[in-house]
Amino acid sequence: MSNDVAAKLAAEAAVAAKAVAVLSTEQKNIVLQSFADKIRQATPTILAENRAEVAEATANGTAAAMIDRLTLTAERIEAMASAIEQIIQLPDPVGLTRQIEQRPNGINIAKRRIPLGVICMIYEARPNVTADAGALCFKSGNAVILRCGREAIKTSLAIAAAMRQALAEHNLPDAVISIVPDPDRNLLLALLKQDDYIDLVIPRGGEGLIRFVTEHSRIPVIQHFKGVCHLFVDASAKPEMALNLLINGKVQRPGVCNALEGLLVHQSIADSFLHKVAAALAENHVKVHACAQSLPYFSGASVIAEDEFGQEYLAPEIAVRVVADFDGAIAHIDRFGSQHTEVICTEDQANADRFIATVDTAVVMHNASSRFSDGGELGLGAEIGISTSKLHAYGPMGLEALTTEKYVVTGVGQTRV
Amino acid sequence: MSNDVAAKLAAEAAVAAKAVAVLSTEQKNIVLQSFADKIRQATPTILAENRAEVAEATANGTAAAMIDRLTLTAERIEAMASAIEQIIQLPDPVGLTRQIEQRPNGINIAKRRIPLGVICMIYEARPNVTADAGALCFKSGNAVILRCGREAIKTSLAIAAAMRQALAEHNLPDAVISIVPDPDRNLLLALLKQDDYIDLVIPRGGEGLIRFVTEHSRIPVIQHFKGVCHLFVDASAKPEMALNLLINGKVQRPGVCNALEGLLVHQSIADSFLHKVAAALAENHVKVHACAQSLPYFSGASVIAEDEFGQEYLAPEIAVRVVADFDGAIAHIDRFGSQHTEVICTEDQANADRFIATVDTAVVMHNASSRFSDGGELGLGAEIGISTSKLHAYGPMGLEALTTEKYVVTGVGQTRV
Repeated sequence: MSNDVAAKLAAEAAVAAKAVAVLSTEQKNIVLQSFADKIRQATPTILAENRAEVAEATANGTAAAMIDRLTLTAERIEAMASAIEQIIQLPDPVGLTRQIEQRPNGINIAKRRIPLGVICMIYEARPNVTADAGALCFKSGNAVILRCGREAIKTSLAIAAAMRQALAEHNLPDAVISIVPDPDRNLLLALLKQDDYIDLVIPRGGEGLIRFVTEHSRIPVIQHFKGVCHLFVDASAKPEMALNLLINGKVQRPGVCNALEGLLVHQSIADSFLHKVAAALAENHVKVHACAQSLPYFSGASVIAEDEFGQEYLAPEIAVRVVADFDGAIAHIDRFGSQHTEVICTEDQANADRFIATVDTAVVMHNASSRFSDGGELGLGAEIGISTSKLHAYGPMGLEALTTEKYVVTGVGQTRV
Repeated sequence: MSNDVAAKLAAEAAVAAKAVAVLSTEQKNIVLQSFADKIRQATPTILAENRAEVAEATANGTAAAMIDRLTLTAERIEAMASAIEQIIQLPDPVGLTRQIEQRPNGINIAKRRIPLGVICMIYEARPNVTADAGALCFKSGNAVILRCGREAIKTSLAIAAAMRQALAEHNLPDAVISIVPDPDRNLLLALLKQDDYIDLVIPRGGEGLIRFVTEHSRIPVIQHFKGVCHLFVDASAKPEMALNLLINGKVQRPGVCNALEGLLVHQSIADSFLHKVAAALAENHVKVHACAQSLPYFSGASVIAEDEFGQEYLAPEIAVRVVADFDGAIAHIDRFGSQHTEVICTEDQANADRFIATVDTAVVMHNASSRFSDGGELGLGAEIGISTSKLHAYGPMGLEALTTEKYVVTGVGQTRV
């Protein structure tokens, strides 16, 4: 039963994907504008569905942070629509062709960007993902299957209905944007087996969701388990710059994956620098988990055991460790980092170069805040997800990561000798 | 037990990968030359192991084609060593940095190529893959775990031993190139769960092996199920060119994945062209599976039912179908193609462009033989595999496909507003 539903959904999306793949940039942009318009027009309906879901979630005792993510307002719906209008402005990667070479036998080799086909987005209680993912997949020439969590399903269905109305008015199949109507786990499992039709699965949510999807999927999965980002303050760092990077990285928005979760300090500057760190963190009400050596600098800090490093606090809390040298910092990150974002603060260019070359992470930064590690800040324009595994994409993923390249070979009848 | 062995193998490879990742191109090339030298020196040992395995396979009644793939000679070992010397000549993708942009806040965004980490190659009775994969993974800065089939395991161990001797002489860990000593299926299953250590699995072999690996792997898998390649001869094709592409594609080496398995002929030229096709295929002893409309042209051909199209004959056999028009050809390929290589022969540039844009395949060709669809012919220098799924790589994969890109962000202390 679940298998039949999943196979039908996936097969229809695969057919619909062919219709989107051949649209011109201009055609896609017209439909995207219509997505934005229809979402604006549907504001009352979307809000009504959302109010009911928020009430239900509140009655069920759902955590405040999740209620906040779930809740829409007229302003948030307007932001959704204008985000789609920003996607219209982004360059379309589909069709870009790069010349590779002309071979001695005269055949000409090029590579051309094409859509992936069908993307399956799996997310929890974030209704805005419905609009974002729908628009990004459409702009990159793909069909999308949206699988939203139980808490936000009615809101998401209302948003998707607005976009599907735009599709219908432009004679495009409904299945260009499908939404799984039933958040049943068996149906999710059945979807994850549709590797004949679905090209990529992008889960967004907690580590548990991502592990579940990875374990059960026969389709390639973009993995983004967590963000345990470190700032390493090297011996030659400017203390003021290092403090700014620390406070910005930890305090500006502590609950996100590019927030800092660990501070590593070169022991040669530990004494002078940690006094300043203690004052700045105290002023910003950040709780410190300190290594034995740094503990005396922080009043009210708790000591952290070796195996307690590497936690994703997602809160105004940070682990602090004094490292003996550059290699100590690298070793710590190797063991406890999450291949998301790692930052060095140093005035020593050789150390910066070595850090950039050595550290195993999707985004490596020198003298810049970890908070820049997202699609918008890195210039992608919009982000469909972040990959912390190295296949296909590594780091924040924009439109290009929703495409691949095919080889285009042209000749005048050459045959192989 | 299998789990412990697999975890140890994978964890050691992950440590070794860090040692290879930081080698310069010059250092890697010196070690690669040593791989070639040691393999040449080990010729007597490799041949002795191989003779024993060939004898055993012959006694077990193994098919002639497999015996041929398994058998090494002094010449084949020399070819292995000189293939490694060709890999030395290839450009090293690791470290290549491309500037993305400078953001308005002054941070600078670049992307730099890095190795994937640990590659697991799973293959059957082809001992030359041991040397090829060992050298390609090494040149691209990765560690490799080789899992060779039962028939060729002793030969492969002898080849790997030669390469590991070279590693030892250059103070590199053994685990840079590991070989799974036991072709036990439980051990393979356990390896496929080591997603904490292994970054990519590349199976090379029959469709059954690839389905088994895909189904059981928690690690991303490069999929290459089969090659069902078509030549579409359009109304405006030059008949002589079309015949040359047909015979080259089907006859030059019928047992490989880029050989033609289907001929599609535009009905407006069917009568004149099929007479020539029949003569040419008969002369080359190619068996024809003909659609009802083309059947009368081929003496001795069998008629093919609709659901019998799409077979990978890997033999001097071909399916022939007359299609009503261009769209009929695209529809046939959509249904029966394998996303490997598709060829159009036409003098009509608009049709060529439309074919290139529309057909869903890793390699699309206009007026060139499907036999060019491999790494060497497309200018990659060497090929580690072919991907017929769109993630990470699509089509023949060379050194670049064994790497990924990380973001490198540099600033002067910028923080996020």
